[in-house]
Parts: sequence; C-alpha cells; structure tokens
Amino acid sequence: MPRDKAAGFAFTVTHTRGNARCGRIRTPHGVIETPAFMPVGTRATVKGLSPAQLRDTHTQIVLANTYHLMLRPGSEVVAHFGGLHKFMGWDGPILTDSGGFQVFSLADLRRLDDDGVEFRSHIDGAAIHLSPESSIKTQNELGADIIMAFDECPPLPAEGAAIMAAVRRTAAWAKRSRAAHTRPEQALYGIVQGGLDVSLRRECLERLVEIGFEGYAVGGLSVGEPPAEMYALLDEFTHELPAERPRYLMGVGRPLDLVRGIAAGIDQFDCVLPTRNGRKAYAFTSQGVLRMRNQCHQLADEPLDPACACYTCANFSRGYLRHLCMSGELLGSTLISLHNIAFYQDLMRQARTALESDEFDTWRAAFSDSPASCRCEEPT
Amino acid sequence: MPRDKAAGFAFTVTHTRGNARCGRIRTPHGVIETPAFMPVGTRATVKGLSPAQLRDTHTQIVLANTYHLMLRPGSEVVAHFGGLHKFMGWDGPILTDSGGFQVFSLADLRRLDDDGVEFRSHIDGAAIHLSPESSIKTQNELGADIIMAFDECPPLPAEGAAIMAAVRRTAAWAKRSRAAHTRPEQALYGIVQGGLDVSLRRECLERLVEIGFEGYAVGGLSVGEPPAEMYALLDEFTHELPAERPRYLMGVGRPLDLVRGIAAGIDQFDCVLPTRNGRKAYAFTSQGVLRMRNQCHQLADEPLDPACACYTCANFSRGYLRHLCMSGELLGSTLISLHNIAFYQDLMRQARTALESDEFDTWRAAFSDSPASCRCEEPT
Repeated sequence: MPRDKAAGFAFTVTHTRGNARCGRIRTPHGVIETPAFMPVGTRATVKGLSPAQLRDTHTQIVLANTYHLMLRPGSEVVAHFGGLHKFMGWDGPILTDSGGFQVFSLADLRRLDDDGVEFRSHIDGAAIHLSPESSIKTQNELGADIIMAFDECPPLPAEGAAIMAAVRRTAAWAKRSRAAHTRPEQALYGIVQGGLDVSLRRECLERLVEIGFEGYAVGGLSVGEPPAEMYALLDEFTHELPAERPRYLMGVGRPLDLVRGIAAGIDQFDCVLPTRNGRKAYAFTSQGVLRMRNQCHQLADEPLDPACACYTCANFSRGYLRHLCMSGELLGSTLISLHNIAFYQDLMRQARTALESDEFDTWRAAFSDSPASCRCEEPT
Repeated sequence: MPRDKAAGFAFTVTHTRGNARCGRIRTPHGVIETPAFMPVGTRATVKGLSPAQLRDTHTQIVLANTYHLMLRPGSEVVAHFGGLHKFMGWDGPILTDSGGFQVFSLADLRRLDDDGVEFRSHIDGAAIHLSPESSIKTQNELGADIIMAFDECPPLPAEGAAIMAAVRRTAAWAKRSRAAHTRPEQALYGIVQGGLDVSLRRECLERLVEIGFEGYAVGGLSVGEPPAEMYALLDEFTHELPAERPRYLMGVGRPLDLVRGIAAGIDQFDCVLPTRNGRKAYAFTSQGVLRMRNQCHQLADEPLDPACACYTCANFSRGYLRHLCMSGELLGSTLISLHNIAFYQDLMRQARTALESDEFDTWRAAFSDSPASCRCEEPT
C-alpha cells in the first residue's frame, strides 16, 4: 500500500462493529470525526447560511463544486484571495469534487474521449475543456484539504459496455490525476466507478489502489437506481475498499441511506438534500419529514423537532416557520436549512456514539424503524 | 399636557444641541437609545436576517407592518403565539405601524370615508375594512411596545384641500384610536399629517396634543416631494412637537436625511433602504455607496467598509460578496443587508456620541461633506 502522500493528512479508525467504523481524519484545517456528513457549498456558500450559522450546526467539513467555481468566479479568482477557505470565510476542512459529475449532469456535453470532455457552460454557453490535468489544476488553485480525481460518471441504468468503458477511463484518468497533483498539503481521493456490477467495481478499485490515494470514494451511485440495488452493492463491496483509508460515498443521501452506508463501512457522505429540501420548506425531524407549508402547522407552538437543540429549534415555532415559508421570506429557507443540516450532523453524532459504546446494531435497528429515518421525504 | 398612559414606558432627554437631542426610551422589552434607527421587519422578519444577526448589528428596536401581518398570517394567529415578540423570536422593543400607509400605497383602495377605508388585499383580493378601531385592535393583538394611531397619508404632491381633509380625518381618527386602545403596556403615538404646509401641521399637532399621546410622529413625508422641501418642513416644524415626548419621522430615509432629521429634533426613524438596497447588492459605506455587482470589485480584498466592525466586514472581502451577488446566492442579500443595518446603527451611535460630547455641529458638518452621507445611492 503506498503511504499517504498528503502532508498533514491522516486517518485513524478508533472503533469498529462489523463493517461499520468510526474514527478521525486529520487535515491542515482541523479534524473531521467520522462518519461525517459534508453539507454542499456549491458556489462557495452553503445556500442561505453564513459560516457562523454553519458552524452552529456542528458541521466539520464542507464540500464545494469545482464545476460551478471554475465557471464563476473562476479558480484563478479564488486563488487570488488565497484559496477557498479565505474566500468563503470557512476555516474548517473543505473538500472539492472533480467537476466530472456536473459535466455529465448539468452541462451541454459536446465531446467525450480519452483526453477529457468538452462542454458548453450552462451559464453563458462558453466552450470549456475539462481533463484530469485541468480538473486537478483547478482544484489545486481552489486549495481544498481534500480533492477528487477526475472521473467519468455515467447515469444509471447504463449498458454494461458503457459502464466498463467508464471504469477503464476513470482508472486512466485517476492515474493522470495523481500525476498532475502538485500540492502535497491536499489529500487526493480516487473514485471507484462500475455501476451496480461488483466485478467492475473491483477492477476499478484494483487499478486505483495500484496508483495509491489518500482516500477512496464510491461514485456513480444514487444516480437513478432503486435504493435496494444501491444497498446491495454497498453491502457487498464497501468493505473491500482499503480499511486504513477514508471511504466516501458521493452524493448520498437520505438519513436512512447514510445509516445503511455507515453499516457497510462508509466514513464520509455529501448531499444537497438538507439544503434543497430546506428551501422547499421540508424539514427532517425525529418524527419524520414535515411539510412546513401544510395548514396543520399554522398554530403549532412546538419547534420543528423537540429532540433538536439547533438555533432554529431553540428559538422558533413551527407556526412562525410556516408563516415565513408561506410569505416567501428568505429567513424561512435559512432556518429550515440550518435545522436540516443540524439534523444530519446529529445523526452522524449518534452513529459515532453508538459505535464508540458498542451499541451500533441496537441503535441502527431502532433508528431504521423510527420516523427519524425519514423514508417518506420528497424525492429529489 | 396629559401624562404618559403606557405602563413601563418613559422617555428621557439627556443632551441637547440646538433642536437636536439624545436620550433614552424605556419600554417593557428594554431601553432604546435615541436617536434610534428601526429596521423594517415587514412580515415579522427583517428580510434575510435572523434575530441573532439583527442583534449583531446593534439594532435595539424593530418595526413590523400591521397591514402585512393582518393579511398574513393574521393578528389572531400572532396573538395565539403570545404576540410578535415570541412569534418572531425578538425579545427587544418592537413598533407596529397602523396599516394606513400601506393601504394608501399598496392596496386596491375601494372606499375612503370618515369611518375608515375599504380595500382589496394585494395577496388574494379579499375585501377588507380598516378603521381606527380595527387598526388598534389588530395592533393590540400583535402586542408591540409602541403602536401607531390610524391616519390618512396622501401622497405628495397633493392639493391643499386634499391635505386639509387628511389632517382633519387624521385628527378625528387619532381620537378614536386613543379611545379604542385597551392595552396600557403599549405606548400609543399620534401621527401628524399636513404635507408641506406648516400651518396645517400645527393644526394637526394641536388636536393630537389635546388627545395626548406617548409620542408624536411626522407622517406623510418622503412620499414624492424633493428632499429640500422635506428638510425645510422639518427645520421649521419638528421643534414644535412636544419636547418631552419621542419624535418619530416615519419612513425616512437616506443617511443624510437621518442626520438632517436629528438636527431638526427627531428621535426615531424607520426605513427599508438598508435591507432593500442590500438585496439589490448596494452597500452603504463610509466611502459612499458601493454597487457590488460592479466588475471593479472582482479582485477586491478589502471589506465593504474598512471603518465597520460588523460580521460581514470582519469576515468577507468585497470580491466574495460580489461573487455571491453575481451568483444570486441568498447569502449575498443577507450579508450586505446585515452590513447596511450596522452602518445605519453606527451612524446613530456616532450622532449620540457627538451629542453627548457636545460636538454635534462639528460632527454633522464633517459627515455631511463626507462620502458617508451617501448622497448618490440608488433612489428607491
């Protein structure tokens, strides 16, 4: 196993239960306790929240999107300000993705070949080329603590040949990503593709491990397949990822998905659900998902979640939050997003505590049967 | 002079300089240092700011709009939650207006007579009747520390006969407002109308003083007339308002207008400019108004205002704020609104300090000549 190449980066597993584990990732901007949830700060801001409000949710690490930031304001602008941490006023750890996922999902894709992708910006139609080299250069300029290899992420369902081609291209691009990476203080994670085919996942992982990364991500899930198929792949495959490296499940998911991921051995998650649903006036709570525009909340005195200690729940009634949502007030988005992130962070804290105290199986069973698993939230 | 009728309400002038003065208003929810600026929380939220963020701007009192709250969520809903303070999570002083101004400016007015006004809601077209009695009942339910008599506010320019009719109706409605008021812990202010005609203003004031109010407001200014005409009226008339009662200039204004108002003897101001301009990406600063979408800010490392200590200026560059504005991110509105309110509050603090240290004339002259007077901000 190649040793860690990133200065100031280390991962320690402190407790395990079956495939699940908890631990700590050390980065140049502080420690992340795992399992960890990373709110999405697409354009160098978690939508609607100040860094101080984000800190109040007990968030330890934020994700930012390379694709969006390279288009606006441009990574060279962020670099001018000394990198993302200084630019956005967040002094904790940051992870940037590679841009690949957004190129395949948002952009007007013009050409895809072994060299990279050519696409048109969704903002102004400008023609842009993205390759392993340019993605890593951009991420080097953004300066996050953890950066991602450039990968090809096909939506599911996909034909076997398409998945296989994506795996081979992803492995080749991973090698070029590693070679292009110039900043030793940034940890570089490889991304395993392979769809729902375990043997393709294994082939991809084997080639990534030969190259050597500080962490390994499972990409290409939660892209259209039924949850049960994602769970089956995670259960069968996750524990094969190197145990001494952080494992990151990209773009997942609902509360129940996170707990399933933790049970399978995942350490890091990111997802837009807490903020996107917050802006749509949906709140995750220990009693299930609340649709805050519903008439039933008009005279409700209680907080969103009596079990929650966040700023929103400590200070505001459901009735007030409903009023803000019905009136289209910005503060409604902010306060519900803040609560939703705090709910996700508290879920991670509960999982860590259960692992530390050898009660993970009991906790997981109780959680999965409870309304807190939020099975019924609005699909996105 | 009738004595104060509101329990827990008192006004003390501590320093004067010419017509200008500073002092303190005591209310059931705390002390307001005057001259005071009241940010506008139209629908029980100062747009984009949490109560904690608002407190950070050194705001001492917030204004909320009776018209908007009676339409949505309804004053009976707010009363169910124990009144505005508990509903919106703001434990400091609150003032509600009477609804009159919005009826005349926003609603589809159907009938105006001595009894009151009938209008159609701008939300759903519902027919609604508002009178001195129903305005005061609504304000009693909302439960602010300071409430306003129901008045007729004609836009300027207006014919003399229209102004005179509004004065007489306003005086009659003031008497009915006083009689309808049932909650002794709420101070009731009368509103002086009369356009730019000092003799009509005097006539209105005389009739209000006969009734007796805890404070006196100058209404019907900043409604279309040139600033110089407003200043002339203020200079000639303000000092005739009872010296031992707070004087409130409604809906004004730009930084320079506030300083002119203070010099004329005003103690309280409210205006939507700091938040409305914040949402439009205009920042008030000691260097003048900054248009934050301008290309010139793209690489600007400095804060909005190097002379400002607010959360925004302590943590973010102009370049980052421009990025947020260009990207349409909610956080841009929040951070610039927060700064703009802090700028207004700091202006009030400077005025109070200058009055306390007998340097008001010097301070006022220096301010009026400086870019901080923000003469050139976007008109609203």
